Amino acid sequence: MATLGDPCGYALHCDEYELTMSQSFLANGQTGTAAFEMSVRTLPVDRGYLIAAGLATAAEYLRGLRFDETQLRWLASSGVYSPAFLEHLRGLRFSGDLDGIPEGTPVGACTPLLRVTAPRIEATIVESALLAVVNHQTLIATKAARIVDAARGRPVWDFSLRRVHGPDAAVGVARAAYIAGCAGTATVVAGQRLGIPTTGTMAHHYVIAFGPDGEERAFAQFLRDWPDRAVLLVDTWDTVHGTERAIAAARATGVPLTGVRLDSGDLAGLARAVRVRLDAAGMQHTRIVASNELDEHRIAELLADGAPIDAFGVGTMLGTSADAPALGGVFKLVAQEETPGGPLQPVMKFSSGKRTDPGVHQVFRRTQGDIVGLVDEELPGRRLLMPVIRGGEAVGQEEALDQLRRRCLEERAALPEAVRRLRDPQPWTVRRSPGLEALRRNLGGADAELAGGTAA
Amino acid sequence: MATLGDPCGYALHCDEYELTMSQSFLANGQTGTAAFEMSVRTLPVDRGYLIAAGLATAAEYLRGLRFDETQLRWLASSGVYSPAFLEHLRGLRFSGDLDGIPEGTPVGACTPLLRVTAPRIEATIVESALLAVVNHQTLIATKAARIVDAARGRPVWDFSLRRVHGPDAAVGVARAAYIAGCAGTATVVAGQRLGIPTTGTMAHHYVIAFGPDGEERAFAQFLRDWPDRAVLLVDTWDTVHGTERAIAAARATGVPLTGVRLDSGDLAGLARAVRVRLDAAGMQHTRIVASNELDEHRIAELLADGAPIDAFGVGTMLGTSADAPALGGVFKLVAQEETPGGPLQPVMKFSSGKRTDPGVHQVFRRTQGDIVGLVDEELPGRRLLMPVIRGGEAVGQEEALDQLRRRCLEERAALPEAVRRLRDPQPWTVRRSPGLEALRRNLGGADAELAGGTAA
Repeated sequence: MATLGDPCGYALHCDEYELTMSQSFLANGQTGTAAFEMSVRTLPVDRGYLIAAGLATAAEYLRGLRFDETQLRWLASSGVYSPAFLEHLRGLRFSGDLDGIPEGTPVGACTPLLRVTAPRIEATIVESALLAVVNHQTLIATKAARIVDAARGRPVWDFSLRRVHGPDAAVGVARAAYIAGCAGTATVVAGQRLGIPTTGTMAHHYVIAFGPDGEERAFAQFLRDWPDRAVLLVDTWDTVHGTERAIAAARATGVPLTGVRLDSGDLAGLARAVRVRLDAAGMQHTRIVASNELDEHRIAELLADGAPIDAFGVGTMLGTSADAPALGGVFKLVAQEETPGGPLQPVMKFSSGKRTDPGVHQVFRRTQGDIVGLVDEELPGRRLLMPVIRGGEAVGQEEALDQLRRRCLEERAALPEAVRRLRDPQPWTVRRSPGLEALRRNLGGADAELAGGTAA
Repeated sequence: MATLGDPCGYALHCDEYELTMSQSFLANGQTGTAAFEMSVRTLPVDRGYLIAAGLATAAEYLRGLRFDETQLRWLASSGVYSPAFLEHLRGLRFSGDLDGIPEGTPVGACTPLLRVTAPRIEATIVESALLAVVNHQTLIATKAARIVDAARGRPVWDFSLRRVHGPDAAVGVARAAYIAGCAGTATVVAGQRLGIPTTGTMAHHYVIAFGPDGEERAFAQFLRDWPDRAVLLVDTWDTVHGTERAIAAARATGVPLTGVRLDSGDLAGLARAVRVRLDAAGMQHTRIVASNELDEHRIAELLADGAPIDAFGVGTMLGTSADAPALGGVFKLVAQEETPGGPLQPVMKFSSGKRTDPGVHQVFRRTQGDIVGLVDEELPGRRLLMPVIRGGEAVGQEEALDQLRRRCLEERAALPEAVRRLRDPQPWTVRRSPGLEALRRNLGGADAELAGGTAA
């Protein structure tokens, strides 16, 4: 399970043209194998790389794909579709192949993140749901990686549920953020469904529930009720006074103060003032957690300013990737059978500014950049695209989230510093192989450069 | 049904602190009634108003709220929660009240969009899911209203599924976009679940499936297969040649050409060239549909430039509200019982930059702006907050989406031009009533202004 509560429920999460084109393909016998690849043409602002994420969710969706009777009845009632097509949908399962770059891997622009090779109708119907999954999780993992980097080893927690694009988006956000190195999430369902570590502190209304003079009583109560996990929110009335009351409550109850959270005001100045008071009270082990409209730049500033903050809760900016809130991943036909059962023939489109790279690709990773080549080329470098589904069945064991997270931290650490810069980074270099360049020339489209590199 | 496929499945779409605080409230008998209101402190960039949306989805969530055995078992297995609290959760249903501003209504900053008045634990647990729903749909409805306005009567279709924040977000996007005046969506499941009109054209890969010389055959095939709804995508190879082939295919098949879609290049120039060819072919009724990274500014430019475009398909910018991708709505305690069964007493918090307006509010609409007053004040103006749920039960009939859409178009038309401007609009004026100002002074917090207006 990789986020979709009920993947069988996602068959109609498609664009209408995927159904109308499919009915036309069926009627005309255009049911041979086609290969589609997903890639992102340009890196979002200030991104030198992307973190690939969402592949396991995509695989879960493909393997669960089926149209149930309720959906088929509704399609029939619309009066749009033919009985033969609806019958085809009733029996439709994903019978093809999925290849993808393992989640957590940093990648550049114009790089195939995944490939679906399947009967044309299957590949057509899954386009939009696959893109929505992988665009979203890759977007958030990329943002989270930047925030985690800025925190320089301090834990970053996902606090974004209330600001994400509908409650369901929170699960994908928590998953992507964890893969990218976040410590966990406040979103409970991500703990239940995915086993991601969850956390929580306290809201202002808890303190207010004890009345205008009740802050110390609120703190004492919460410490007694949650002796192992009470992080007290100290800024409901005044941060420094709140800290003094938290210290007093810890002394009165005899419960060690795990942490305090600051959620407003001048976080650096307040953190220093709070640290002084905690240390003076002998509470050197009490952690200071900061939240409130944080992102990678704000965190970097706070730490550059010497703010003694031990952990960060990040909401809106993480959960929506607010400075770059959409990833423009596309899913493009790269090869198709010309005769039934024949070999896949490379294809490309020529729309202005949207030319595609023809053929079935492999990505070869080298120390200084990637080469996008043809799958049958023998090139130096580690091959990034790996089989995930073959003939509708999962290949091997699904990797644990912790494994993806480790990969992400390790491979990110290996990137050049200039690629990881938070502002104006150098894009991770991606070049085409000589074989791919030759194929583009043969098909008449050799005049475009890949982002981040010149043609090899 | 207002978007959540299975609202009962959303009990754990909460932040962990909502559960830990609730267990503490239960243990300490703090189970009296509390009132929380949701509002947005500041309008996003370039917005003079928001379009309230998501209320019916929020009500659906509240009325379906329950913890099922799987969820309770998982909570128990975490070892965090007490048996008494888990037993409380097993019986928990939403038994309180919901009031809200009808969906489709334009509102300003610092305006209560909804209020939950309920036993404290119920009101605590629902915070984040409610916010995620209403923040998201209000965000998207607001963006969609701007795009629809820019299109000056031409239909705008939601094409955003592939770029939204996970597949589920697409349903809320389609709903909010429709309320705000979009003609419909390409997302099929929004048609199934919500009855929103759906549409579709054709993808580049349909054309490529017919081979490099197959564009005219592709068009003829699609016209024969979909004689009533074929909008042909003409830019796979070259837009003008593609249009000539679409004309030829329509003549060859005898099927009238419903429309053509342009998805790349200089849309204004190409639309003019395409219009000339269509008109010369006697196809004055063939519509030109444009798509490709459109938003309200681009659409306004195209129309100012005289581009003969008849309809717009808008994806990324609509589906993520890309220039302002998050709404900072908060859910704040405004009043609580001090004695069991006693009257609700107003409360406020004082956190730096985050002071709240105390008390239970009503919003009074007047021609030139809104007054936020106390619910028992008698003030001139139309009362905007209406009962939605009373004692856990729906009040009256849920309004049809078309009714919300009509309201949105009518009430938007009544706003001053300066408030609707696409750039640097004047914020819709919101003032506090004398009663609310007096209450703030009494509680010690009279020094803040509401956005968009001075205190009355």
